[in-house]
Amino acid sequence: MYKCNSSRLQELIEQFSQFGATANGGVTRLSLSQEDVVARTYFCEICKELGMEIRVDDMANIYAILPGKRDCPPIVMGSHLDSVEKGGRFDGVLGILTAIEAIRTLKDNDIELEIPLMLVNFTNEEGARFDPAMMSSGVISSKFSKDKMMQSVDKNGITFKEALLASGYEGEKENRLTEALAYIELHIEQGPVLEAKQREIGVVEGVLGMVCYEISVTGESNHAGTTPMSMRKDPMIVASNIMTTLHEQLGEIDEELVYTFGRMNVSPNIHTVIPNEVLFTIDSRHQNPEVMRKVEEILNGLPPEEEGCHIQPVKLWGRDTVFFDAIICNEVEKSCQNFGYSSHRMFSGAGHDAQYIASFIPSAMIFVPSIKGKSHCEEEETAFEDCTKGANVLLETVLTLQTEFSRGEKYTLNS
Amino acid sequence: MYKCNSSRLQELIEQFSQFGATANGGVTRLSLSQEDVVARTYFCEICKELGMEIRVDDMANIYAILPGKRDCPPIVMGSHLDSVEKGGRFDGVLGILTAIEAIRTLKDNDIELEIPLMLVNFTNEEGARFDPAMMSSGVISSKFSKDKMMQSVDKNGITFKEALLASGYEGEKENRLTEALAYIELHIEQGPVLEAKQREIGVVEGVLGMVCYEISVTGESNHAGTTPMSMRKDPMIVASNIMTTLHEQLGEIDEELVYTFGRMNVSPNIHTVIPNEVLFTIDSRHQNPEVMRKVEEILNGLPPEEEGCHIQPVKLWGRDTVFFDAIICNEVEKSCQNFGYSSHRMFSGAGHDAQYIASFIPSAMIFVPSIKGKSHCEEEETAFEDCTKGANVLLETVLTLQTEFSRGEKYTLNS
Repeated sequence: MYKCNSSRLQELIEQFSQFGATANGGVTRLSLSQEDVVARTYFCEICKELGMEIRVDDMANIYAILPGKRDCPPIVMGSHLDSVEKGGRFDGVLGILTAIEAIRTLKDNDIELEIPLMLVNFTNEEGARFDPAMMSSGVISSKFSKDKMMQSVDKNGITFKEALLASGYEGEKENRLTEALAYIELHIEQGPVLEAKQREIGVVEGVLGMVCYEISVTGESNHAGTTPMSMRKDPMIVASNIMTTLHEQLGEIDEELVYTFGRMNVSPNIHTVIPNEVLFTIDSRHQNPEVMRKVEEILNGLPPEEEGCHIQPVKLWGRDTVFFDAIICNEVEKSCQNFGYSSHRMFSGAGHDAQYIASFIPSAMIFVPSIKGKSHCEEEETAFEDCTKGANVLLETVLTLQTEFSRGEKYTLNS
Repeated sequence: MYKCNSSRLQELIEQFSQFGATANGGVTRLSLSQEDVVARTYFCEICKELGMEIRVDDMANIYAILPGKRDCPPIVMGSHLDSVEKGGRFDGVLGILTAIEAIRTLKDNDIELEIPLMLVNFTNEEGARFDPAMMSSGVISSKFSKDKMMQSVDKNGITFKEALLASGYEGEKENRLTEALAYIELHIEQGPVLEAKQREIGVVEGVLGMVCYEISVTGESNHAGTTPMSMRKDPMIVASNIMTTLHEQLGEIDEELVYTFGRMNVSPNIHTVIPNEVLFTIDSRHQNPEVMRKVEEILNGLPPEEEGCHIQPVKLWGRDTVFFDAIICNEVEKSCQNFGYSSHRMFSGAGHDAQYIASFIPSAMIFVPSIKGKSHCEEEETAFEDCTKGANVLLETVLTLQTEFSRGEKYTLNS
């Protein structure tokens, strides 16, 4: 077992946290922004110094390849360098930097690779500048149309296509990742579970299925003082009843089900006026498709009318649960055991590039604990010690997979 | 009994509805705007033609006085010419125009007045351009500080003081209304009660007491996908519980109590993020101070903490119930009976200049039905027939009060 260099990793994290640093210890490194380009360039320099070959595809995904003795598809590590506005120093970038540290540790120990190792930086994972999130892993996985993505516009009216050209990182389509033996992404948990359970590593078995509905409740606007209660069609009272009832009904289904009323817009939103419309969203996630089916059944079973108001649930989007490769998950778990790290098998509630890559490459993820579960904010924090543990598990898993793959002739894992 | 001229009144209403006319049949005639100034000037011209003397006070309130044989305080009719943005053609202005029609009818019939008759247009009743509503009746009733009102700023940064100077309607403080025998304001109901009860005239006994609270529920923002339900502090779920519970509790107090959750702001209001704060208002009104006391007891009795969230009710403002003069109300009701109009004794749920004037002059209001209860919108409508009925009742009440006051030596009404 090889151990990564904790102080070197910390220094690297601190270096990258300067690219787009905010006043309160976070970063704003929107995809293909100047800050992102600076980070990309530095990333490429480091990889080249490590003897890696750089390729860039037509979505500006960057692939750094360390050759192996065999000419075969690589084992891939990766994540993303972009951040949300006023995001943290760990989300995404940590998957890249622990992989660099893993490769540096390989070099320190003069380990010769049998199978090529690839490190990928996916463009616009956050979707914070250009909608949708996980745009470029989505395009190379045929989830999104490239032409449509090129038209995506940021808040300043700049298209993704324009930002791509301006960045200097538009590469060739033939460089896209199409084949690999495995994909492993290390990421911060972005939730409070590992910290609460006092576990050092999350073995991520998949990404939760989700649905997002918008529920519109339409009533009739009237004067708050002059309209008797019996003559009202008040959508706010109906909406609060619906939320209270849904909370009761969904709360009974499964304790692992999560649901959130995150957005609510009231019209006209004046204290002396009975609203005429209340719009609110419910986002719900669970790994079991049967549970998600029940959730949708409840949402679609809302009465069309209540207290004179019209109720309409509209599905904004949804995704099926993505299950990661069971063998790679086992290897991650074994790596934890080898180091004596406590681990916890879990699903990711948040979306990640790995969920799209998993559609054509056996994939898994490694989570490290988020302090207080915070992410997408300047307070986002993971102990450097935990980052190093993650890097150790990542390297160990990659090396074990190397050995496994080298044994077979068809580069498949034994189940 | 004298009957007003229905077609002349309709013509007058249609003339005034041109001052600030909107595309969809409403008016935007914000206080002291160009549109308001045009309406004021036309109002003054009409009054002068009727032989009335015009005086203007330091808040731009306009008083038109028709002298009587006696040199004594006047009987006053009045309301306001200003409207909200995209308001209706009747709110406020109808009280002025029915009074003009009443005076024209007096002239038609060569009625000589014993007691002076005054018609007043109050400035900035709506508060739509300059906060607060009923600003100028409030200043002359010592409810508001004039100095503070002068600093009130519209959305373009113009102060009330600047708008006052620009309007050309800044008059003298000594012209303020300080003494009168009675004040009667005709207004549209702005609610659905008269229409629903099929009554022609509302005899308004007072203005409902009200309170407005803002309730803040503070929790903790976290990722909607990664935070288990048991580890959340979700203010949206707590807020919906509070609204549902308040609806149950308040609904049991009294069927005439009204309450409205009109405004709600959710932070950060993103569908994938558990909110950290939900702010919502509750406006509640009833004529009985004891009922209002119970409402406030319930609001202030909300638990300070629920499901990890902090709950704080803050009283934004309140007003006590204003009771109008019982004798004038009786005269209004008798006038209805004389004409064979059905009437309904009621309280106003909305605020009116009369509620401040009532603090120093015996006052009452006459309501005419609002079609579908609509007001403060372009759809606001009252049948012209009902406007004329209102004008008839207004004139009859004024004449009856003339007779009553003329009988006594001290100009007091017999109870």
